[in-house]
Amino acid sequence: MKKIIGILGGMGPAATLDAMDKIIKNTPATCDQENIPVITVSFPDIPDRTASILAGRESPLNKMLAALRILESAGAQCIIMPCNTAHYWYEELKASSNIHFINMIEVTCNKIVREGINNVAILATTGTIKAGLYQDRLKKYKVNFVAPDDIQQEIIMESILAYKSGDRKKSYWLMEPVITQLKNMGVEKFIMGCSEIPIILSGCGDKGEYIDATEELVRKAVEWSCLNEDCI
Amino acid sequence: MKKIIGILGGMGPAATLDAMDKIIKNTPATCDQENIPVITVSFPDIPDRTASILAGRESPLNKMLAALRILESAGAQCIIMPCNTAHYWYEELKASSNIHFINMIEVTCNKIVREGINNVAILATTGTIKAGLYQDRLKKYKVNFVAPDDIQQEIIMESILAYKSGDRKKSYWLMEPVITQLKNMGVEKFIMGCSEIPIILSGCGDKGEYIDATEELVRKAVEWSCLNEDCI
Repeated sequence: MKKIIGILGGMGPAATLDAMDKIIKNTPATCDQENIPVITVSFPDIPDRTASILAGRESPLNKMLAALRILESAGAQCIIMPCNTAHYWYEELKASSNIHFINMIEVTCNKIVREGINNVAILATTGTIKAGLYQDRLKKYKVNFVAPDDIQQEIIMESILAYKSGDRKKSYWLMEPVITQLKNMGVEKFIMGCSEIPIILSGCGDKGEYIDATEELVRKAVEWSCLNEDCI
Repeated sequence: MKKIIGILGGMGPAATLDAMDKIIKNTPATCDQENIPVITVSFPDIPDRTASILAGRESPLNKMLAALRILESAGAQCIIMPCNTAHYWYEELKASSNIHFINMIEVTCNKIVREGINNVAILATTGTIKAGLYQDRLKKYKVNFVAPDDIQQEIIMESILAYKSGDRKKSYWLMEPVITQLKNMGVEKFIMGCSEIPIILSGCGDKGEYIDATEELVRKAVEWSCLNEDCI
């Protein structure tokens, strides 16, 4: 059997679904039984990540640790967490567990470096931006990047929150003009560095312009699950 | 917090996703935290249900019981199993657990009776049809129904298997003419009694003609989760 992927999800629930959908799409299967086993803990009451990073509100760490313990006990063999902002607590989560835990920010930056991508803008929550989750790695790898200015960032965050509140149309028409502005500034590629953004922008624009962090995370997990398949 | 829904899934993985998507769509939420907590065990290597019912192949029961034990240990408070055919083993699964376990076939037939629906056709796997999962209940409630004839049933099953093999287009063009034939015979409504069928037919035809068993199951589970919300 292929190895079991555990999803530390619920941040938000639609982003969790998007990751599960991408697992199916990235797995060659001609019948149910050839798919990858997945256990998902989608606990949406995990406190808001951005509010904790920016305003010192309740930390989501304890609830994320509880979800991780459930995944461990349930038999997950590799963990993914389809929420970029939650990776602010990645090291603490990883240190608490013996299970292989794939870092979404790392695999996305690795792709950028591997493909020699430059002039890239980071589309993410204000929590992810202010914590420098992408910037720190991109600087290390000497990749030219743009983080949106404060006004643009406010609009991006409003777009993400609109999606989370169920208003998909609003989320799109808020995000789209910011992307156009950034293109006019010379940006060539965009990191979809919040797991709601691939859903907000799905079906829109030139797919080649976007680097989808959820897609990169899932590809790595699928590859791992299939490579480590038991030969029985 | 709302009660935790446990999904005994993987039969198939896309149907599991469809159920999770319908949980989100049926939950009024203005932010992540207002959504319902869900634990999903999606183990697609559960043996084929139809092959077991029709040809006496390996029973899926042991693997379904194992998934149910994982959901129990993980803290699920209500179980749903978005696979109609798997309900052939519902009584054995339910008897092995103390957790509230909603029956997909029952909630769907209840809707049909409640709304006085008649002249209904059953679209389902050959396993579900041969086991009489819907027919037995509909007879009891004196609902007029049609089960497809053997040739139609073979095409419906081929359509479901085409979807499971990744060929969505083929699955649609196989299913559509059977539905037209049944309409010409006087069928007024269709039970989408296999959890792949709402995906195969999504975006097609008059929604009012279809009774989506996954939707009925999820609505009941969401109602249960919200009604039993802890007041802390």
